[in-house]
Amino acid sequence: MAEQAVTAQSEDFSRWYNEIVYRADLAAPSPVRGCVIIKPYGYEIWEGIKAGLDRRFKATGHQNAYFPLFIPESYIRREAEHVEGFSPELAVVTHAGGKELEEPLVVRPTSETVIGEAFSDWIQSYRDLPLLINQWANVVRWELRTRPFLRTAEFLWQEGHTAHATHDEAEAETRQMLDIYAEFAEEDAAIPVIKGEKSRMERFAGALRTYTIEAMMRDKRALQSGTSHNLGQNFAKAFDIDYLSENNAQEYCWTTSWGLSTRMVGAVVMTHGDDKGLRLPPKLAPYQVVIVPIIRRDAQASAVMETVERLRAELAAAGIRVHVDRREGQSPGFKFNDWEMRGVPVRLEIGPKDVENDNAVLARRDIPGRAGKQFVPQARISDTVRELLADIQRSLLDEARAFRDEHIVDVAGYAQLQEVIEAGDWARAAWAGGDAHEQNIKDETGATIRCFPFEQPDQVGNCIVTGNSADKVALFAKAY
Amino acid sequence: MAEQAVTAQSEDFSRWYNEIVYRADLAAPSPVRGCVIIKPYGYEIWEGIKAGLDRRFKATGHQNAYFPLFIPESYIRREAEHVEGFSPELAVVTHAGGKELEEPLVVRPTSETVIGEAFSDWIQSYRDLPLLINQWANVVRWELRTRPFLRTAEFLWQEGHTAHATHDEAEAETRQMLDIYAEFAEEDAAIPVIKGEKSRMERFAGALRTYTIEAMMRDKRALQSGTSHNLGQNFAKAFDIDYLSENNAQEYCWTTSWGLSTRMVGAVVMTHGDDKGLRLPPKLAPYQVVIVPIIRRDAQASAVMETVERLRAELAAAGIRVHVDRREGQSPGFKFNDWEMRGVPVRLEIGPKDVENDNAVLARRDIPGRAGKQFVPQARISDTVRELLADIQRSLLDEARAFRDEHIVDVAGYAQLQEVIEAGDWARAAWAGGDAHEQNIKDETGATIRCFPFEQPDQVGNCIVTGNSADKVALFAKAY
Repeated sequence: MAEQAVTAQSEDFSRWYNEIVYRADLAAPSPVRGCVIIKPYGYEIWEGIKAGLDRRFKATGHQNAYFPLFIPESYIRREAEHVEGFSPELAVVTHAGGKELEEPLVVRPTSETVIGEAFSDWIQSYRDLPLLINQWANVVRWELRTRPFLRTAEFLWQEGHTAHATHDEAEAETRQMLDIYAEFAEEDAAIPVIKGEKSRMERFAGALRTYTIEAMMRDKRALQSGTSHNLGQNFAKAFDIDYLSENNAQEYCWTTSWGLSTRMVGAVVMTHGDDKGLRLPPKLAPYQVVIVPIIRRDAQASAVMETVERLRAELAAAGIRVHVDRREGQSPGFKFNDWEMRGVPVRLEIGPKDVENDNAVLARRDIPGRAGKQFVPQARISDTVRELLADIQRSLLDEARAFRDEHIVDVAGYAQLQEVIEAGDWARAAWAGGDAHEQNIKDETGATIRCFPFEQPDQVGNCIVTGNSADKVALFAKAY
Repeated sequence: MAEQAVTAQSEDFSRWYNEIVYRADLAAPSPVRGCVIIKPYGYEIWEGIKAGLDRRFKATGHQNAYFPLFIPESYIRREAEHVEGFSPELAVVTHAGGKELEEPLVVRPTSETVIGEAFSDWIQSYRDLPLLINQWANVVRWELRTRPFLRTAEFLWQEGHTAHATHDEAEAETRQMLDIYAEFAEEDAAIPVIKGEKSRMERFAGALRTYTIEAMMRDKRALQSGTSHNLGQNFAKAFDIDYLSENNAQEYCWTTSWGLSTRMVGAVVMTHGDDKGLRLPPKLAPYQVVIVPIIRRDAQASAVMETVERLRAELAAAGIRVHVDRREGQSPGFKFNDWEMRGVPVRLEIGPKDVENDNAVLARRDIPGRAGKQFVPQARISDTVRELLADIQRSLLDEARAFRDEHIVDVAGYAQLQEVIEAGDWARAAWAGGDAHEQNIKDETGATIRCFPFEQPDQVGNCIVTGNSADKVALFAKAY
């Protein structure tokens, strides 16, 4: 049975995305509105993301903890901007144990409030600071339009929450965690990101400053892939998070929060995928190598399978995640397509000729056709494969970075910005406008300020809407 | 400031437990009724439990996935016994996104229903079987009386869900997972467990058979520490989980489920703890070794700290989880008590004399006073510590097993059972009674049938209540 071809990216990117997510078996629809089931192949990518982040969090002194799923409704109301930002999206438990609750419980959309309340208990003196906590959890935001991984009513994420004695320490933490997200995105997910600050309009509800990493997908839309917030003393004041300083004064803490979610799985799909399916960066691929035995006649089977098993064992012993496709009744061609759809970085083929010649065929997923294929000796196969995986990891990042840089245009005026956005690209523009100008651009072009990049040009010039001298450039793009 | 002494176990075990949980910093009270916050030290123990189980699940071919938190209320009703068992404990979302929902959503108390619905989609033919899935998740059961880790409204757990072609394969899976729980409990948590089958009354709502591992706490109460259910075809029929067999017939699957929760953290506390605090088995201890520098005069500090740092580095390089207590202004005595409270298996002391003599003092947490202390050479410290940790791991298990075996009494009649239960021990008795007899014993003595142990005596004898010839013995005990 021939599988129907996937919709081409160029034809309908959004449809391509949905098809890939389901056909590569990353997720399945669920009976609950706006929720998906994360299937094993998708969940393993998430496990890779978790491991990569958790290691970095712990290396910088953070500890994991777990806070309640339910938040008393009154808590959400304590921070004025916070309640305004999250109220429309809340799911609320009104009945439990067969009775109506005296106070409804909100299913956490994020945990600043309940963790703030805990911090106010835990922190007494400057000796208790900094307090550096992370939580791996599910959260719920009742979104109207949902898409697998990118926006679902329930999603998985980590949320870091920290408290500090001074503004500057909180600021350094906020920036450090953004750096960790960027490092993870580039090194592990091979996704180049632009670090910057969000505009006032796009800031987290209740934050002093929000920093973001922004990535460009293959349809050139922006994806906000992780955010880090300096919360100032807003939550500290709302939840009485204070401490006795070294000078014996009662002071409010400065707090931060930062989060990255299963959305990153969607980012991997949309940054690297092509018309044949996923292309997974080796560091996050559940299988880094798939071995496909090529057997035309039964008599060849035992010799081929013996070699296959020997190479599998050698690769596994070297710490490489390897899978042998032993399915019977499926042609090698079918298997090649199947593993291309699933984005396995390296395919290793072994046929009778390879057994005779002590050879193997390696095909890399990121370079199609013959150019990506090579004959290699079986000897020292794990070294060969390890180098190839490192090269693929690097190439995917380079390719994505080149693609992105090609599609960011410096614009000198609003008319040019409109053209650039219309063409689907990102526009970089000098900016000294206000909220109303920003809203107007959004209404007219569909683009938002993704961030004010940390990396700024030497000369900024005049604001594209006000004409006034600007002190920074902003990045505009249509976004997910 | 002298800390108040902990309540002795012999005085009030329940109070001792609560004090230890909070003072060893495993958990903190939360503002949400029936929920606790799992603090970093408690969460790290849970991370150890997760790692120990996850490794074993994957080695036996299971894959992780993630299913929605919310379950449409109608799903819970589809399996008759299931709805009866769980209805009183459900938390229900009635409003979301500012509107009343058309169908209320239950916060999962367990996921047989929503996973059953998914399996009915995923499984078409015998080639899709067995399907072996595990989920790490939070669940909610609105319990009236709660205690940290043992019974809370929300808790963390894993739930395995599998589907098979035949009854016997499902039965083998159910038993295999119980074996894995028992192996984990004994090898990693140093908790000896008795494997057995639950009585009809204590069975999981909707199961054909429920197996359990039962452990004896230091107050001699039983703690059900993990369960594995053969669900027969009950859920398969309720959710249409069927497949096309090799003979081209449409057949219902046989399904299983099995779960182990953060309750295991409570089991560790109550199996090993003593009047000084926790005693953690080395395999699950966040810190396996704490180094306490002994410095009386400032002039000694640099030589002592240099040695401390060298030993720390050597232990860490050997993969041993080591922590140096660098707190200033706290006496060594205070630190000793503090780490004893937190149950760190090995304390390593270094003072100026030890620096001179190339010695170190090792004190094991499981053997109090001088008997547990020894001078050792600094040379090859990591080998010495590794052996000591292995010995402590073994000793804790042996000690718990000896304690348990001392307190299980074979009883010949109901009067003796009453006496044994009254004394707080467990009674093993020949059993051929029915539900009514079992309920009667519960009402009269407070004890329940914990299980029919897999390990049965050669001669069983006559049932202690009916006098009829019995084919098995049951274990009776008061339980958490």
